[in-house]
Amino acid sequence: MLKFIKRVSKKTGQVPGTVVHVGEKRAEQVTVNVIDYDTSHVEEKQVQVLEDCFSFKDTSTVTWININGLHETDTIEKIGRHFDLHPLVMEDIVTTGQRPKMEDFDNYIFIVLKMLYFSERSQEIKAEQICFILTKNVVLSFQEEEGDAFDQVRERIRKAKGRIRRKGTDYLCYALIDAIVDSYFVVLEKIGEKIEALEEQLLSNPTPDTLQALHGLRSEMIFLRKSISPLREVVGDLERGEPELITEEVRIFFRDIYDHTIQVIETVETCRDLIAGMMDMYLSSMSNKMNEVMKVLTIIATIFIPLTFIAGIYGMNFKYMPELEWKWSYPLIWCLFIIAGGAMVVYFKKKKWL
Amino acid sequence: MLKFIKRVSKKTGQVPGTVVHVGEKRAEQVTVNVIDYDTSHVEEKQVQVLEDCFSFKDTSTVTWININGLHETDTIEKIGRHFDLHPLVMEDIVTTGQRPKMEDFDNYIFIVLKMLYFSERSQEIKAEQICFILTKNVVLSFQEEEGDAFDQVRERIRKAKGRIRRKGTDYLCYALIDAIVDSYFVVLEKIGEKIEALEEQLLSNPTPDTLQALHGLRSEMIFLRKSISPLREVVGDLERGEPELITEEVRIFFRDIYDHTIQVIETVETCRDLIAGMMDMYLSSMSNKMNEVMKVLTIIATIFIPLTFIAGIYGMNFKYMPELEWKWSYPLIWCLFIIAGGAMVVYFKKKKWL
Amino acid sequence: MLKFIKRVSKKTGQVPGTVVHVGEKRAEQVTVNVIDYDTSHVEEKQVQVLEDCFSFKDTSTVTWININGLHETDTIEKIGRHFDLHPLVMEDIVTTGQRPKMEDFDNYIFIVLKMLYFSERSQEIKAEQICFILTKNVVLSFQEEEGDAFDQVRERIRKAKGRIRRKGTDYLCYALIDAIVDSYFVVLEKIGEKIEALEEQLLSNPTPDTLQALHGLRSEMIFLRKSISPLREVVGDLERGEPELITEEVRIFFRDIYDHTIQVIETVETCRDLIAGMMDMYLSSMSNKMNEVMKVLTIIATIFIPLTFIAGIYGMNFKYMPELEWKWSYPLIWCLFIIAGGAMVVYFKKKKWL
Amino acid sequence: MLKFIKRVSKKTGQVPGTVVHVGEKRAEQVTVNVIDYDTSHVEEKQVQVLEDCFSFKDTSTVTWININGLHETDTIEKIGRHFDLHPLVMEDIVTTGQRPKMEDFDNYIFIVLKMLYFSERSQEIKAEQICFILTKNVVLSFQEEEGDAFDQVRERIRKAKGRIRRKGTDYLCYALIDAIVDSYFVVLEKIGEKIEALEEQLLSNPTPDTLQALHGLRSEMIFLRKSISPLREVVGDLERGEPELITEEVRIFFRDIYDHTIQVIETVETCRDLIAGMMDMYLSSMSNKMNEVMKVLTIIATIFIPLTFIAGIYGMNFKYMPELEWKWSYPLIWCLFIIAGGAMVVYFKKKKWL
Amino acid sequence: MLKFIKRVSKKTGQVPGTVVHVGEKRAEQVTVNVIDYDTSHVEEKQVQVLEDCFSFKDTSTVTWININGLHETDTIEKIGRHFDLHPLVMEDIVTTGQRPKMEDFDNYIFIVLKMLYFSERSQEIKAEQICFILTKNVVLSFQEEEGDAFDQVRERIRKAKGRIRRKGTDYLCYALIDAIVDSYFVVLEKIGEKIEALEEQLLSNPTPDTLQALHGLRSEMIFLRKSISPLREVVGDLERGEPELITEEVRIFFRDIYDHTIQVIETVETCRDLIAGMMDMYLSSMSNKMNEVMKVLTIIATIFIPLTFIAGIYGMNFKYMPELEWKWSYPLIWCLFIIAGGAMVVYFKKKKWL
Repeated sequence: MLKFIKRVSKKTGQVPGTVVHVGEKRAEQVTVNVIDYDTSHVEEKQVQVLEDCFSFKDTSTVTWININGLHETDTIEKIGRHFDLHPLVMEDIVTTGQRPKMEDFDNYIFIVLKMLYFSERSQEIKAEQICFILTKNVVLSFQEEEGDAFDQVRERIRKAKGRIRRKGTDYLCYALIDAIVDSYFVVLEKIGEKIEALEEQLLSNPTPDTLQALHGLRSEMIFLRKSISPLREVVGDLERGEPELITEEVRIFFRDIYDHTIQVIETVETCRDLIAGMMDMYLSSMSNKMNEVMKVLTIIATIFIPLTFIAGIYGMNFKYMPELEWKWSYPLIWCLFIIAGGAMVVYFKKKKWL
Repeated sequence: MLKFIKRVSKKTGQVPGTVVHVGEKRAEQVTVNVIDYDTSHVEEKQVQVLEDCFSFKDTSTVTWININGLHETDTIEKIGRHFDLHPLVMEDIVTTGQRPKMEDFDNYIFIVLKMLYFSERSQEIKAEQICFILTKNVVLSFQEEEGDAFDQVRERIRKAKGRIRRKGTDYLCYALIDAIVDSYFVVLEKIGEKIEALEEQLLSNPTPDTLQALHGLRSEMIFLRKSISPLREVVGDLERGEPELITEEVRIFFRDIYDHTIQVIETVETCRDLIAGMMDMYLSSMSNKMNEVMKVLTIIATIFIPLTFIAGIYGMNFKYMPELEWKWSYPLIWCLFIIAGGAMVVYFKKKKWL
Repeated sequence: MLKFIKRVSKKTGQVPGTVVHVGEKRAEQVTVNVIDYDTSHVEEKQVQVLEDCFSFKDTSTVTWININGLHETDTIEKIGRHFDLHPLVMEDIVTTGQRPKMEDFDNYIFIVLKMLYFSERSQEIKAEQICFILTKNVVLSFQEEEGDAFDQVRERIRKAKGRIRRKGTDYLCYALIDAIVDSYFVVLEKIGEKIEALEEQLLSNPTPDTLQALHGLRSEMIFLRKSISPLREVVGDLERGEPELITEEVRIFFRDIYDHTIQVIETVETCRDLIAGMMDMYLSSMSNKMNEVMKVLTIIATIFIPLTFIAGIYGMNFKYMPELEWKWSYPLIWCLFIIAGGAMVVYFKKKKWL
Repeated sequence: MLKFIKRVSKKTGQVPGTVVHVGEKRAEQVTVNVIDYDTSHVEEKQVQVLEDCFSFKDTSTVTWININGLHETDTIEKIGRHFDLHPLVMEDIVTTGQRPKMEDFDNYIFIVLKMLYFSERSQEIKAEQICFILTKNVVLSFQEEEGDAFDQVRERIRKAKGRIRRKGTDYLCYALIDAIVDSYFVVLEKIGEKIEALEEQLLSNPTPDTLQALHGLRSEMIFLRKSISPLREVVGDLERGEPELITEEVRIFFRDIYDHTIQVIETVETCRDLIAGMMDMYLSSMSNKMNEVMKVLTIIATIFIPLTFIAGIYGMNFKYMPELEWKWSYPLIWCLFIIAGGAMVVYFKKKKWL
Repeated sequence: MLKFIKRVSKKTGQVPGTVVHVGEKRAEQVTVNVIDYDTSHVEEKQVQVLEDCFSFKDTSTVTWININGLHETDTIEKIGRHFDLHPLVMEDIVTTGQRPKMEDFDNYIFIVLKMLYFSERSQEIKAEQICFILTKNVVLSFQEEEGDAFDQVRERIRKAKGRIRRKGTDYLCYALIDAIVDSYFVVLEKIGEKIEALEEQLLSNPTPDTLQALHGLRSEMIFLRKSISPLREVVGDLERGEPELITEEVRIFFRDIYDHTIQVIETVETCRDLIAGMMDMYLSSMSNKMNEVMKVLTIIATIFIPLTFIAGIYGMNFKYMPELEWKWSYPLIWCLFIIAGGAMVVYFKKKKWL
């Protein structure tokens, strides 16, 4: 539940713009990595003293400053002040549980996204909040914990693969968002596998656990949709190129992300439809079973209850029951049993119950 | 029910603009608090004679006049006349059960909102109507009863925390609306807790009461959605900064509230989805139980009814029943009982009913 | 059914603009009332000769001509010709079952609305069509029968209450529409009461009649929505003040009606949601009862069928049944009965069926 | 099914604009009727040689050329060439199963509509495609078969009823479309009658056939909605008067059709809602019956199974059963039977099962 | 499942614009066909050396280059470089599982579509991705495998049927897309046949397999909708003629495709509605059967259980049971059996269970 409704009481009633960390403390220590590059050089370092990274603000090279861990609000505030961020932006950065959004300030763009991954341990989709600040020369990224989907971007910068070293911060920002959207496909594949497994289970041997699992999956899809669907608007705004910081040339790349986003959202919807269909199928297979159980009961009861009655008649102790004395009564009564029982069976065959 | 459809017959057919209180009389006495401040001073007082607060209308300082209690319509009318409010505005202020809305008059903005809180006593969400009049120098707030979410705003004014003392009435208005929207999160948390509790109950031991509680929660969500969803438009209008009284600088803060509003509305929708899912789960768990009950009945009946029939046969009193005389009949019939019963059990095992 | 699909065959295939009354003939005789007023005088009369009211067309005072009864098409046609109405407008006036709409002709506005009231006799919502023609000096209103929600407007004109005497035809038109929208709240209250009564019934003792009543109520809501929802557009158009005949000053009053209209529509939607929820609750309470019935059957059958079988065994007449001869057989078999029965009860307790 | 998905394989892969008839051949022979009129004269004839009607193209009178039967594609092509129609238009005319649409070419408007009628024989709604070509002086109408809703329009032209003789082709076109939309009301009335009949059946004696009929009706509504709903856009486009061929004066008449169209569409939606409601009612009445059946079974079984067990006890043949010897055993056991049975009945009364 | 969620992990994290084939390798070898034509000549050849087709780029004739097979990414890259395609376009071409889309670059248009066909072997709808590049003189088409719906287009070019030889690349592109949309109708017909067959099965003898088939069909419809619905936007964009490469004259043809697309989408929706209706019908027919089963059980049990009890009474071995000695007891008890049984039957007749 906490996944859906973040506790905010810690926050309620504070001065707007107060930088108070809301969320789990995930990282042990806040670490800051800097990659600075242009066409001809790359420099990469882990910053010990925060102020070391401030000098990159005004260089002409592209600098990517990645902050892992949000709980040391001092650090965040220092960075915020140095890069002239609006207090509300700083508040948003440390308040996890934000809705994905894009805000265009005059000299920087603020982007909030969700990084999704499938936790093998808890068999659940986990979300981590990632914020980007895109300025003319610097991209700041804020993550809740270390370890991310950005390793391949780093590799591409280091080895000058593709066009990333020849382009500006907008392309870097694109590359990072692209990596995040790509990670959604990985999550969707996981979901797809789960749906497939459940579908098989549904066809072979549906149990109440299958339904439970389907319900769980449905909740996951609600969570997924809530995390992903605002992205459409965010990337759409970036693609339409209203912010000046996104150059014409890079916009076409954002259009590509936009297409992927639509595809992700549509797939989530498709999965929801499929899960709903599987639930219906489970319920109708249950009711089929019930039908079968009822038929067995009815057949047995309908055949034997009347016969038992007949046997009961001749179990009565009346003095004057002429049949009891007859020699052929007993064989005759057996014939009656067999004929009556057989007639019932024929009747059920005709009704297609057998 | 009265929560959804306010009685209006008292009102129907009156001259439009008549100031007649519609709603419960919640406060004992109407009280008026005034806080007047600028960067350098704060003055706070409880007004005894209403006219005392009128002088603040034209001062250059920011004044917040808070009126608790709406049933003394004289007071409201006097204030309305002094601040030149449109008769329909005055009517709306005293008519609780209004839909949240924002109306931009030339020299003031009229805002109607709902304050929501969770009543621990009745275990229900309660709504109180709050109206704001925002003029250049004064913010008027009208509440149904004393005691509100604004204490922290007052504290910030008194202690000059944050930027509130350096800004105008538009920022004050923002701070008050922000406090209200924050209170929605508190209510949502309560709902979240309830959903969690019910989910647990659903997994461990669902009873008809669980369903009853889910139904109750669903009605609460309908009520919540009705109270909150118009807010999107209200805050959206304020954020787009069409009213001149909202300065450029403060608009960005309204954008923050707008984000929160969207988040609240989305969470309400998510809760609705979750509750609907839980209801489905309850029903399918009920039908599972039913299935189990039917199976037990069928197994017992199917095993024992035929056996009882066989016992019935040898309870018949026919004179000529050769089996009765045989020495091994009785042990043989026991064998038959055991074999027939065992065959049934095997059959049920095969059918996976056992 | 006729409430939803008006018979129109009488009409089909006629020359467009033919004034043929479609609908029940509700009033005995067509009556025409005229109220003529300005700030200083009021004149009120029931017109005997239709032409008497034509003179008001060009006076500078405000005139309200109210026509009760639509079946004397001659009268309607005469009025139409005198006030220069388009033939299609005249056709619409006498064709009840119109959808609420607003049409702006150059020198007059044509408005069609539904007056709703709750008929205590048939316990149903009834609708009456009301048309307004708003010209510069005259408001024409056409009703199906006498007796309406306008008495309080008349009273206000007579006694010069409020601002009605100081304003033009647009304000009069507003006052009339306001009276109609107010009457919707009365109907909604009635619905609210019914919902409350059914909710109580649902909790205490739901019967198939409860469901029947819920179904009836749902049909009423469909009808209500169909009658009311087009109003949003109608009043919205009037409020946006596109028609020149609505002065700036009066537009704000139409905005007030617009708010009420939204509130009415939302309440109808809320009621639909509540009714749907109650239906679900009825069904699940039914299925609960069914469950209980099944449990009782299963418990009784499961306890006694095996015991009956045991009794049946010792009712067999085999010659050689050693147990029959034993002295303690009978008490022992009672022990067996009690233990087996008790074990079953314990089993059911464990299963939480008891 | 064929009603929903027209076979098009005959068509697939042909050169676009090829005039190949797709659909049933409904008329025996293609017939062409011409009515030519202005204020002062009317001329009406059945054309033998197609070319006879070509001369009307350039006269200043209004000419209505009605073609019945679409299977002689030569005829259609000749007309098309003479009136300069786009090949795709000609293709659309002969391809029945088109979606209603309006296309504005520079010198003519092409309109596709559905004529609906209720076939008494098959108790189904049938649709016939009707196309109009509206030029400055000529209206061409293409029907699948003879016999239509246009007789009253012809009558009005012949007898100069209404304003039809004084107006141009746009008014003629309006009159024809109006006749078609009027015919929808007739179909809706039929549906209304059916719904009423089923509702009665539902209340008195619902059978599986009732449900079958409801399902059939629902399919009809799907078909109806598919045929009618595009009309909204078609008539809306004509009403907004974008095409130059529709004069200002006639536009108001199209607005009237627009209102009717909305009314038809809303009624279809209402019918769908009602049918859905009736289905729910059927299902819950079925489940009510089931409940009743189960109760009867449970009551009988619960009363008699324990009693039978008791009787079974004293049917056992143990040698030492003291009760068997007692004098009052038999009357006492009867008392037990009556008391136990009565207690059950009281229990069921308390449970409200009886 | 793989039909819905394409595996993309192979792709994730690569440099954007990398041309890596994603999807099944369907064709053995990549083949390239070229058709070059103008009004007076046609030239058709299968290209051995890829560079052979490059010369057509700048000729004034219309050239259609069709590439079958996407797995040889070298070939694709060479073509892409020669025709100056954007890297992202080249990436999209080889990544099957794209959403249909249209992108307008300055000097070419990029279109992605789905070719659908019904695989008789797997009784499933299969989708193949087709991409078009439309430049001033050349149309490039990329398919996953040989064999397509374009044969008739080729035929028309060869034989100069219709206007294709007289028009430019935009018309060729139209003809190809038209062929694809036509193929959708063929798939829909197949679906229609399946629905018809299932409907018949549903009426005659519904089995759980029927439901299974309906579920399968529903999944197909979800897949179909996902593949087709984006087409609306794609063709809509082409029709509105924003891209300069589409001439005014050809736009009208795209409008024709647009109409077909709407028709396809509406038919898919209609099918979904029908399938949903059929599922409801299946479920209610199942519950009908269940009702019937329950009734048989109840009738049998209710008739015979009480009678068995009576027989049980006189099977008791009490010493003092006066009835046992009476001469007429036995016939009387038979009368009781017959009367009691008959009364039950009458009762059931009255209840309409028989």
